Amino acid sequence: MENQFDIAIIGAGSGGYIAAIRAGQLGLKVACIEANPYADPNGDPRPGGTCLNVGCIPSKALLASSEEYEKIVHHVAAHGISVNGVSMDVEKMVERKAGIVTKMTKGIEFLFRKNKVTFIKAHARFSAKTDAGFRIEVRGKRFDDVINAKNVIIATGSKARHLPGIPVDNVTICDNAGALDFTEVPKRLGVIGAGVIGLELGSVWRRLGADVTVLEAMADFLPGCDAAVSKELFKILGNQGLKFELGAKIGEVTTGNNSVQVTYTDREGQQRAFQCDKLVVAIGRVPNTENLNLGAIGLKVNARGFIDVDAHCKTALPNVYAIGDVVRGPMLAHKAEDEGVMVAEIIAGQAGHVNYGAIPSIIYTSPEVAWVGKTEQELKMEGVSYKAGQFPFTANGRALGNGDVQGFVKVLADTKTDRVLGVHIVSTYASEMIGEAVMAMEFVASSEDIGRISHAHPTLYEAIREAALAVDNRALNM
Amino acid sequence: MENQFDIAIIGAGSGGYIAAIRAGQLGLKVACIEANPYADPNGDPRPGGTCLNVGCIPSKALLASSEEYEKIVHHVAAHGISVNGVSMDVEKMVERKAGIVTKMTKGIEFLFRKNKVTFIKAHARFSAKTDAGFRIEVRGKRFDDVINAKNVIIATGSKARHLPGIPVDNVTICDNAGALDFTEVPKRLGVIGAGVIGLELGSVWRRLGADVTVLEAMADFLPGCDAAVSKELFKILGNQGLKFELGAKIGEVTTGNNSVQVTYTDREGQQRAFQCDKLVVAIGRVPNTENLNLGAIGLKVNARGFIDVDAHCKTALPNVYAIGDVVRGPMLAHKAEDEGVMVAEIIAGQAGHVNYGAIPSIIYTSPEVAWVGKTEQELKMEGVSYKAGQFPFTANGRALGNGDVQGFVKVLADTKTDRVLGVHIVSTYASEMIGEAVMAMEFVASSEDIGRISHAHPTLYEAIREAALAVDNRALNM
Repeated sequence: MENQFDIAIIGAGSGGYIAAIRAGQLGLKVACIEANPYADPNGDPRPGGTCLNVGCIPSKALLASSEEYEKIVHHVAAHGISVNGVSMDVEKMVERKAGIVTKMTKGIEFLFRKNKVTFIKAHARFSAKTDAGFRIEVRGKRFDDVINAKNVIIATGSKARHLPGIPVDNVTICDNAGALDFTEVPKRLGVIGAGVIGLELGSVWRRLGADVTVLEAMADFLPGCDAAVSKELFKILGNQGLKFELGAKIGEVTTGNNSVQVTYTDREGQQRAFQCDKLVVAIGRVPNTENLNLGAIGLKVNARGFIDVDAHCKTALPNVYAIGDVVRGPMLAHKAEDEGVMVAEIIAGQAGHVNYGAIPSIIYTSPEVAWVGKTEQELKMEGVSYKAGQFPFTANGRALGNGDVQGFVKVLADTKTDRVLGVHIVSTYASEMIGEAVMAMEFVASSEDIGRISHAHPTLYEAIREAALAVDNRALNM
Repeated sequence: MENQFDIAIIGAGSGGYIAAIRAGQLGLKVACIEANPYADPNGDPRPGGTCLNVGCIPSKALLASSEEYEKIVHHVAAHGISVNGVSMDVEKMVERKAGIVTKMTKGIEFLFRKNKVTFIKAHARFSAKTDAGFRIEVRGKRFDDVINAKNVIIATGSKARHLPGIPVDNVTICDNAGALDFTEVPKRLGVIGAGVIGLELGSVWRRLGADVTVLEAMADFLPGCDAAVSKELFKILGNQGLKFELGAKIGEVTTGNNSVQVTYTDREGQQRAFQCDKLVVAIGRVPNTENLNLGAIGLKVNARGFIDVDAHCKTALPNVYAIGDVVRGPMLAHKAEDEGVMVAEIIAGQAGHVNYGAIPSIIYTSPEVAWVGKTEQELKMEGVSYKAGQFPFTANGRALGNGDVQGFVKVLADTKTDRVLGVHIVSTYASEMIGEAVMAMEFVASSEDIGRISHAHPTLYEAIREAALAVDNRALNM
C-alpha cells in the first residue's frame, strides 16, 4: 500500500467521508480509515458511520414504513378509503431498511474510488508525531501497516451512552442499533430517554402496535426546543399513545425471561416498577476518543471525553483537526459534514467556514419538528428583545387538503432590527420546510423580507410567510 | 348599506380577498364584491374564487386522497405492508373535499369581519366615473344598490376556456369544476389539454382506476417547463399509465349515451377517433372581463380580453387597478395574492412591490414539479451564458428511505457571476422544497452560497445543495 498521504482521516462517517471526498476533489492525497463493520456480512468495515448504518438513514426508512402503516390503520378512512386486514411483515420492513443501508455504503465506496480516496478498512492508532507529520498504525483483517500523513482529521464519531452497570445486549436491552432490528413488534416497549432518538424509535414501534412507555430523567420535555414546540409535540405524541414518565430517576434494571423490569423513582418521589419486553436505552451519546492512542502525538481529550477545537476545528496541535461528534456542538450528521468540507478546504489552503448559528435541527416524529436559530427561552436568557409571530396549520389550505393540520410555524425576530433570530416548525414536512428558514437566516433576512417574498399556493410552507407576517400582527389568513 | 368606500374590490378570489384583508389592516374602508355562488347550497355568492372553490384547494384535496389510495394499491408492499381489499368511496372523497372548501370559504368571511371588510354578495357593474371616484352598481339576491369608491381593484379572475361549439355540461363534458365532482370513477376519461390542470385532474382519476388519455394540441409536452423537467415528467406519467397524444388537432366532439366521441388529427396527420365516458376540457383559461361595463368609466380590455396594467397593476385610469388572472403574467393564485397586497399598500400610500422574476410555479402530479426563475431554453434564447448543475434523488438518502427516488434538482447559474438564475425540481415534495430556492433567488444568491449553507440531513432538500455544488462539478454525493 502507498503510505504517504496529505491527509489521514480517521473515521468514514458523515464527517469523515465528506471530508475525504472534498479533499479528493481538491487534489489532495487522502486516506480514510474505518474500523466498524456494522452489519457487513463478512465483517469488513463499512463507511457511513452511525448516521448511515445505525442512525439517521435506517431510522428514517423504518419511520417511513411505519408511517405508511399507521396512515392505513388510522387516517385513510377520512379520504373515503376502505381497507380489510392490514398487516406489517416486520422482517421485510427491516430487510428493506438494511438493503437501503447497504446500497448507500456501496455508494460511498464508489465515491471514494471516483475521488481517488484510499479507503483503509482497519483500526487507526497514532504511533508518533514525526518531522513530516504523523505516523498512524492501521490494523485490520487485510491491513497491518503504517501510514504517514501531513494532516490528520479525527472524525471518529460517537457511540450510545449506556446506563452504568446495565449491559446492552441489543436483543432485550438495546441501544439505537438494536432497536432498528427487532424481528417482531414488542408488545411492551420501554424507552429510557425522551430525546430525538428515543422519540423516533418509540414512534416507529408504537405505530406498529407496541405499547410504548418513555422514561425521562429530566422534568421538562425536550428542554432544548422552543417551549411552544415542546408543549405541542408532547401533547400530540401523548394523543398518539406514547406514555411519558418525566422526572423519572432510573433504579434497577433486571432482565427475566424475555422481559425487563425497570424500577424508578417518579417525579413525586414514589418508587415505581415497570415491565416491558424490550428496553431501548437512548440517554445520549459519548464521543469515540478511546483507543486512538492520542498520547503518542501529545493530544488530550477534555473532561467529557471530547477533543477541544476552535471554530475552524483546529485542535491544540498544528495540522490535527477534529470534526463531528468528537467535538463541541450538536451531534448532527450535517454539522459533521459541514465541518468536513470546511477542514478539507482549510488544509487545501482555502477559506472554509461553518456558520454555527444557522445549523438546522430536526426530530422525525409525526408531525416532524424542525428549527434553526434561537428559541424564546434562549433569547430571554440572553436578554435579547424580540417579537414572535405564530401561524397554525389549521388555517393552511394544503394542510386541510392533506388532512393533517397539526402544528404551527413560529418566527422570532429582533424587536429593533426585525432580523429573524429563530424559526420553529411543527408539521408533517417540517424537515423539508426548514430549508427556506435557514436560507433566510444565512442572508440575515428580516421577518418583513420573508413576508414580502412570493410563496407558492397551496403549500404548507406558506405558513412560514404567515408566521413572519404575524411578527407584525399582519398575517393575512388568521 | 354604507356606500362610501376607500376601495371597492371586484372579485373575492385569491387576489381580491387578500387585497381586501391587507387594505382592512391598513385602516382603509373596503368593499369586496363577489357574484359567484359556486357550490353554495343557498346559491349565495362565496368568497375564495376559482382557486378555493373549483381549483387549487379542491384539486389538492382529491390529489391527496387519490395519492393515499394509489400508495396502498401500488407502493406499500415494498415496506412489508399487506392489505386485503382496498376500495375508494368516491362520494365520500368528494364530500370531504367539499367540506374543506366550505370551511375555508367561511374562514374568509370571518377574516372579512375581523378586518372590517364589507363583503357584498352581488354582481358589480361600473355605472360611472365621478369627481370623487367611481360609482358601481351591486345587484344580487339581497342587494340592489349603488356604492361609491375612491379606488377600484378589478380582481375578477378567469374562467375555463371551452372548445368552440362544444358545450360543457359538467356532467359528461366537463371543465375543471365538473372534473372535481365525479360521483364515480369514469372507466375511460378523456382530457383535452396537457397543461397543469389536465395533468392534475387526469392523475386523480387515473390513480383511482380510470383509463386516461390526454390529447394535446402542441407537439411538445409542457413547453413552458425546463426541457429536462418536461422530459422526466412525461416519462414518469407515461409509466404511471397516462396515455398522451401530443400534436393532436381536435375535430368533432359528439356525445352519445353517457359517452363521448372525439375525432382528431394526430401528429402524423392521420384521422383518429377516441371514445370515452367523460371528457375534461382543460385548454387554458380566459379572463373574466365581460359584464363589468368597463366602458362606463372609460376602461378597455386588450385584444386578448385582459386589462393592461403596469408593473404596479395600475390601469390606464388613475385609481383603477387590476390584479390576478385578468392581467398579464402567470395565472397563479399566489401571484394574484402578491399583487393584491402590493395594490392595497400602494393605495394606502406605501411602497408595494412584486418581484415577477421570483414567483414559483408548481404542478401537483406525483412526483411534483416546482420551479422558479428561468429555464435553460429561456436562457439560451436570451443569450445568457450559464452553467447547470443537476442532482438525482437516486443518490439522496431520504428519498431512498421514503422509497421514492424519482426526479432531480437542477440549478442554473450565471457563468460569470454564479448568480442563481433558475431552480427546477421534480420530486415528491418539490412544492415544499421550492421555498428555499425562491428565498435564495430573492437574496441574489450564487450557486456557491447555496452550496455553503448548512442543509439538514437526511432530507430531500439536500438535493438542492448538491445540485448547486454540481454547477461547479463538486457535488459531494455524486
